[in-house]
Amino acid sequence: MKILYIYAHQEPKSFNSALKDTALAALKEKGHEVKLSDLYEMKFNPVLTASDFPERKNPDFFNPFLEAIKASKTGAFAPDIKEEMEKVKWADLLIFQFPIYFTSMPAIMKGWIDRVLAPGFGFNPITKSAYDTGLFKGKSAMLVTTTGAPKEMYSEGGEHGDLNKRLESITHCVFEFMGLKVLPSHIIYEASGMSRERGIEELEKCKQKMFRLGLDTV
Amino acid sequence: MKILYIYAHQEPKSFNSALKDTALAALKEKGHEVKLSDLYEMKFNPVLTASDFPERKNPDFFNPFLEAIKASKTGAFAPDIKEEMEKVKWADLLIFQFPIYFTSMPAIMKGWIDRVLAPGFGFNPITKSAYDTGLFKGKSAMLVTTTGAPKEMYSEGGEHGDLNKRLESITHCVFEFMGLKVLPSHIIYEASGMSRERGIEELEKCKQKMFRLGLDTV
Repeated sequence: MKILYIYAHQEPKSFNSALKDTALAALKEKGHEVKLSDLYEMKFNPVLTASDFPERKNPDFFNPFLEAIKASKTGAFAPDIKEEMEKVKWADLLIFQFPIYFTSMPAIMKGWIDRVLAPGFGFNPITKSAYDTGLFKGKSAMLVTTTGAPKEMYSEGGEHGDLNKRLESITHCVFEFMGLKVLPSHIIYEASGMSRERGIEELEKCKQKMFRLGLDTV
Repeated sequence: MKILYIYAHQEPKSFNSALKDTALAALKEKGHEVKLSDLYEMKFNPVLTASDFPERKNPDFFNPFLEAIKASKTGAFAPDIKEEMEKVKWADLLIFQFPIYFTSMPAIMKGWIDRVLAPGFGFNPITKSAYDTGLFKGKSAMLVTTTGAPKEMYSEGGEHGDLNKRLESITHCVFEFMGLKVLPSHIIYEASGMSRERGIEELEKCKQKMFRLGLDTV
């Protein structure tokens, strides 16, 4: 498979970084082709502005939705967006790895979604292309994420509620919306206070999960 | 009341901008003191990085959580964060206005939350201060938002699911988590294709809602 790995953590010596390296190595070992978008390292700009659209449909009034629909026909997106779009087109599977910030993605990754998965690219409300007719039909997506809080807090009836339900804003309302098949999220709870032993165990589990990709899940 | 109005839309001639102006005028008319954080206009940086913490606890390993906990004791946050924190401390009520981007906030506003509502400020996992003992106890918060999709799509059983449930990632997992009392969200569905008449009606409804703040809701 061709896999685009979108990654968001600031610290190269963090557990998240080791997790990313482990996943990438396992995927390559299984013969997959992998491209990495390391968002902090790339200094990816997550803020959607008028300069995302170098050939404005309406230079006097900025409507992000209509500009994106037009740009998706002509290809006139800012270079950083185009580059990420090319990777998405190339990929069979998108993996997003990030630490949970308030039951959701850090802003840098939310902005990658806001800017790269633009109207007209993954979905098109004008032609009613979404969900069953989402434009990424045939591709898959998966979340890999770590939390500070324990699993009990992120369960049904727990203080924050079921994390998988919270993440539906992404897995359902972004991924399935665009026709992507959603693979089960790989969630590592209570990662902040982990012992070295548990860390090693979690890296091994992630490696095994990545080994199985394309066998039982895609 | 003292109200901090946090606003995210790029276009000063947009409906969202008119909505913000209407709300601010109504709040001032009722005698409230209002401060505005116009995030795109301020070019607010939503990306949490090591430079958020000018006096690093550990310069060799960046752990955003531990750095924030330390900085919340010493006050050593980057100037743009400190400025927003001062506004939050001053306010009785926080109002967040934004167009829905994928059932959630645009990245620029998610990043305001990620960076400004830092561990140790609105909540403190070390001292177990959250929810009932959230550090913003006594303050309130409210969302004002617009969608492209119609209400049916954002209802229980609709394609995207109930928007109020989706927004719990913010209203529950951020606001209530930090002890803020949550006022009902003011949601304007299908705002993109609105007629001029409906636009005027919606501005009037918002004005009336703002007039009532502090009477029946806070």
